[in-house]
Amino acid sequence: MPNQQTYHMTPDEFRRHGRALVDWIADYHEQIEAYPVLSQVQPGEVRALLPEQAPQTGESFEAMLKDVEDIILPGITHWQSPNFFAYFPTGASFPSMLADLLSSGFGVQGMLWATSPACTEVETHVLDWLIEMMGLPRRFLSTESGGGVIQESASSASLTALLAARERVTQYASNLTGLEGGLVAYASSQAHSSIEKAMMIAGLGRENLRLIDVDADFAMCPADLAARIDADLAAGFIPCFVSTTIGTTSSNAIDPIPEIGKICQEHGIWLHVDAAMSGTAALCPEFRWTHQGLELADSYCFNPHKWMFTNFDVDCFYVADRSALIKTLSILPEYLKNQASESGAVFDYRDWQISLGRRFRALKLWFVIRHYGVEGLRYHVRRHVELAQQFAGWVEADARFELMAPAPLNLVCFRHVGGDDLNQALIEYLNRSGEIYLTHTRLNDVYTLRMSIGQMHTEERHVAGAWQLITETAERLAADL
Amino acid sequence: MPNQQTYHMTPDEFRRHGRALVDWIADYHEQIEAYPVLSQVQPGEVRALLPEQAPQTGESFEAMLKDVEDIILPGITHWQSPNFFAYFPTGASFPSMLADLLSSGFGVQGMLWATSPACTEVETHVLDWLIEMMGLPRRFLSTESGGGVIQESASSASLTALLAARERVTQYASNLTGLEGGLVAYASSQAHSSIEKAMMIAGLGRENLRLIDVDADFAMCPADLAARIDADLAAGFIPCFVSTTIGTTSSNAIDPIPEIGKICQEHGIWLHVDAAMSGTAALCPEFRWTHQGLELADSYCFNPHKWMFTNFDVDCFYVADRSALIKTLSILPEYLKNQASESGAVFDYRDWQISLGRRFRALKLWFVIRHYGVEGLRYHVRRHVELAQQFAGWVEADARFELMAPAPLNLVCFRHVGGDDLNQALIEYLNRSGEIYLTHTRLNDVYTLRMSIGQMHTEERHVAGAWQLITETAERLAADL
Repeated sequence: MPNQQTYHMTPDEFRRHGRALVDWIADYHEQIEAYPVLSQVQPGEVRALLPEQAPQTGESFEAMLKDVEDIILPGITHWQSPNFFAYFPTGASFPSMLADLLSSGFGVQGMLWATSPACTEVETHVLDWLIEMMGLPRRFLSTESGGGVIQESASSASLTALLAARERVTQYASNLTGLEGGLVAYASSQAHSSIEKAMMIAGLGRENLRLIDVDADFAMCPADLAARIDADLAAGFIPCFVSTTIGTTSSNAIDPIPEIGKICQEHGIWLHVDAAMSGTAALCPEFRWTHQGLELADSYCFNPHKWMFTNFDVDCFYVADRSALIKTLSILPEYLKNQASESGAVFDYRDWQISLGRRFRALKLWFVIRHYGVEGLRYHVRRHVELAQQFAGWVEADARFELMAPAPLNLVCFRHVGGDDLNQALIEYLNRSGEIYLTHTRLNDVYTLRMSIGQMHTEERHVAGAWQLITETAERLAADL
Repeated sequence: MPNQQTYHMTPDEFRRHGRALVDWIADYHEQIEAYPVLSQVQPGEVRALLPEQAPQTGESFEAMLKDVEDIILPGITHWQSPNFFAYFPTGASFPSMLADLLSSGFGVQGMLWATSPACTEVETHVLDWLIEMMGLPRRFLSTESGGGVIQESASSASLTALLAARERVTQYASNLTGLEGGLVAYASSQAHSSIEKAMMIAGLGRENLRLIDVDADFAMCPADLAARIDADLAAGFIPCFVSTTIGTTSSNAIDPIPEIGKICQEHGIWLHVDAAMSGTAALCPEFRWTHQGLELADSYCFNPHKWMFTNFDVDCFYVADRSALIKTLSILPEYLKNQASESGAVFDYRDWQISLGRRFRALKLWFVIRHYGVEGLRYHVRRHVELAQQFAGWVEADARFELMAPAPLNLVCFRHVGGDDLNQALIEYLNRSGEIYLTHTRLNDVYTLRMSIGQMHTEERHVAGAWQLITETAERLAADL
C-alpha cells in the first residue's frame, strides 16, 4: 500500500518493487516464446476487464503487477519475440531499458541546454559518434555546419526536414496562404506514408506530393524524377523537397541517391534521405553501398529503435546546415531566455524539433553503443542479413514459392505461387497460430508476404521454424482449395 | 562485460544490473537535496569528458554507471529536487518510473490497435477515467463522439488541434497554397510559444496568429477577441482557431472560457483549451472553477507529466469530435491494413497523432492513478496550492516585495521593488548558489520572478527556506547597489 503519510512510494518501497519488476521483465523475456506472438484478444476485451472508474484510494504494487499479468499480457503483441517477423523490428535490449529507466529516474527536461547540459551534450556527442561509426558524411557533424538530434520517430524527422525545406524556399515566411505557385515535393510511389502525412501537416497538400515511378526493383527512377521536376517548373510550380528512401517499408528498395542528389543539386531542391530501418546496416563497411551519394543529402534519418537494439523512441536526424533548421523552428519567449542560450555557445534542442519538451533519450543510445561496442552491433546486423539471405535462398529453391523483390539486407518479400487468396489465407493462419507473426504488402498489385528479420534474439532455428510452418501451412491450404 | 557469445546482456545480468540501478536511483532521490539544483557546468564541459570515438568493443555496466556519476550527474539540472521552483514542475514519481520501465520491457509499438490491443485500450480507458476524475465534459468520452489520446507534449496537442481546425475549415483539402483569403487564428498575448510554432508548422504564418489583449489579470479579453474576429471577417480573412489557456506559462492566468466559447460558437470557430500544467487542479472540486465553460471546447489538453507525478512524456489530449481528427490525420497504406482496423471496431491511435509509432505510455498513467488513488493525487494538489498561497502571503506582507499577478493556484509571480536590474541580479545569485532554482518572465514589461510550486516532495520547509534565501540575498544586493 502507498505510504499513508504522503501517498508517495518511499525509496525503500521503490527498491523492493523495482527489484520485483526487474525480475518480472527478465522472466518475461526468458519465457517470451511461450506466448502467441500476435495478441489473440478481440476488440474491447481488455477494456472490459478494467474497472469503470478510477480507484479513490491507492492500490498496492502487487495488485497492479497481477493485473499486468491477467489483463495486459494477453493484450500484448510480442514485438520482442524472436518469432516476430512483422513490419520492422523494434529492438528493446536490456542495456537500453536500463538507460531509459535512468532517464526516468533523473526526470529532466532537456528543452534548453541550461535545463540539463548533459542531456544536450551527450546527445550531440553520441550522434557525432554515429557519423564515424556508420561512415556518414562529415558535413552532418555538429563540429561542422550540421548536427544531429534525436526525434521521436522517422515521421517527425521527415516532417521536420520538409518544414526546413519549405521555409528555405519561402524565405522563412511560415505562411503558405496567398503564395503564388504551389510548392511541390517528390517521393517514389514506394515511399513511407509519413511523407504524405507530412505534406498534409505542412499545409502543402497531399496531392502536391508527386509519386515518382519505380524501376523493377522498386527503387525511384531518376529519369522520371527529372521529367516531373521539369514539367512542374514549366507549369509554374516550385519544387522544394525530394524524399528518398534507403530500404523502403514494403520491400527494402534502395533509391539511387547519387543520381537523385545530382538532380536536386541542379535545381537547389532539399534532399532528404529516410533510412529508418536500413540505416543501421551502414555500421558494417560491406553494406555502406546502400548509403552511396549521401554526401548530397540535406538531411538524413535512421531509427536505432528499429534495428539498433534501442527501445522506442530514438530516431537520429541529421542536417547538413543546422541554421536552416533553427531558423525554421526557433521561437524565444521571455520565460525561456537564459545566458547560455544568448551566448550562442550551446545548442537548444527545442529549436531542432516540433515539441518544446524532451526527455534524456541520448542515455539509451549511449548505453547501447557502449554495451555492445561497434563490434557487437556489427555482429548482429551481419547475422540478421545472413539469416534473411538464407531464408531468401529457401524461397528461391522451392518451386511453390517465389521472391517478389530483391532482398538486399534483412527483409524478404515472397509469396506462394497459388495466388492472392491463398497467400491471404496463409498469413491469417500463420498469425492466428501464434507461432510467428508476419505482415503483408502489395508489390505490383500482388499480395506479398514480408519476412522481416531483425529481432535481437532471432536465431537460425526461429527462421527455419518459420519456414517450415509457412511451407506446411501453405501445403495444407493449397490442398484444401 | 557483455556476454561474449552474442554480445547481449543476459537476463541474469539484467537482474543484477537492474537491481543496482534501482538502488542507484533510490539513492539519488534520497540525496537529491545535496546537489546544486541548477547544473553548474560550463558549455562544452560534459562533452570534453566523453571519448572522441565510440568504443569498438563492449564496456561493462559498472563502467557506464561510474561515468553517470562522474560525467552526467554534474551536468544534470535536478528537476526532481524539492528546491526546483523553475518553469513548471515535471513529476517523476516512483510508480510512474516503474510503469515506464515495464513499457520498455514490453517494447511494443502501439501504432495500430492490432499491434498491441492493450496499449490502445488501456489508453482509451484511462483517459475516460480522467474525465470523471476531473469533471471534464462528457462529450470528450470515447463512448460518446469524442475521445482522448496521449500526445508527447502540449505542443503536439496544440498543433494537432490546429491541424484539425484548419482541415475542418478547408474541407480536408490539406493544401493552403492558392487558398483565397488567409486563415487566421487567435490566442492571447500571454499564450504559450508553442501556438506560434504550430502556426508556422501548419503553414498558416506566424503573423496570422492574432495576439489578443489581456486584462489586468493577464487573461484574454473576450471583447477584443470579438472585435478582432469581426475585423478579420470584414477584411476577408477566415477565422479558424482560438487557443485559450487555463494557467498561462508566465503567470497562471485563466482565460474566460465561457465568454470566449460563446464567441467561437457564433462563428463556428474551433476552440482549443490548453491547461498544460493547471489542468491537474481540476482533480479537486474546489478548483474546477478554472475549467468553467470547457463544454464549449472542441479540444482540450493537460500534461500529467507536469503536475500529476507522471514522468515525461504524457500529455492527455481530448477532442469532442474524433472524426474531425481522424479525417485530418489518417493515411492507410497497404502494409498497415488489417482486419481489426477494417472492422471499424477499434481506434488506431496513429490516426490521432503526428507520428506513426508510439510506445505504451498509458501504463504510467494507469500506475500513477492506481498507486495514489484520486485521494492521493488531490492531497498533493491541495498541498501545493496551499504552499503557494502561503508564499504569496509572505510576499504581500513584505514591503520590499510585490506580487505581480494574481496567484490562483500554485504559481506566484513577484519581484523586489528595487527594479529590473536588482531582480535580475537576484535570480542569478539564487540560481548560482545551487540552493534553489527559479526562472523569470516579463509582465507588463517588468522583470518578474516566478515561484512555481509543484515538485512532488516540496514541503513547507523548502518554500520557507527559499523565501529566506530570497529575502536575505535581495537585502545584500540592495545594500551593495
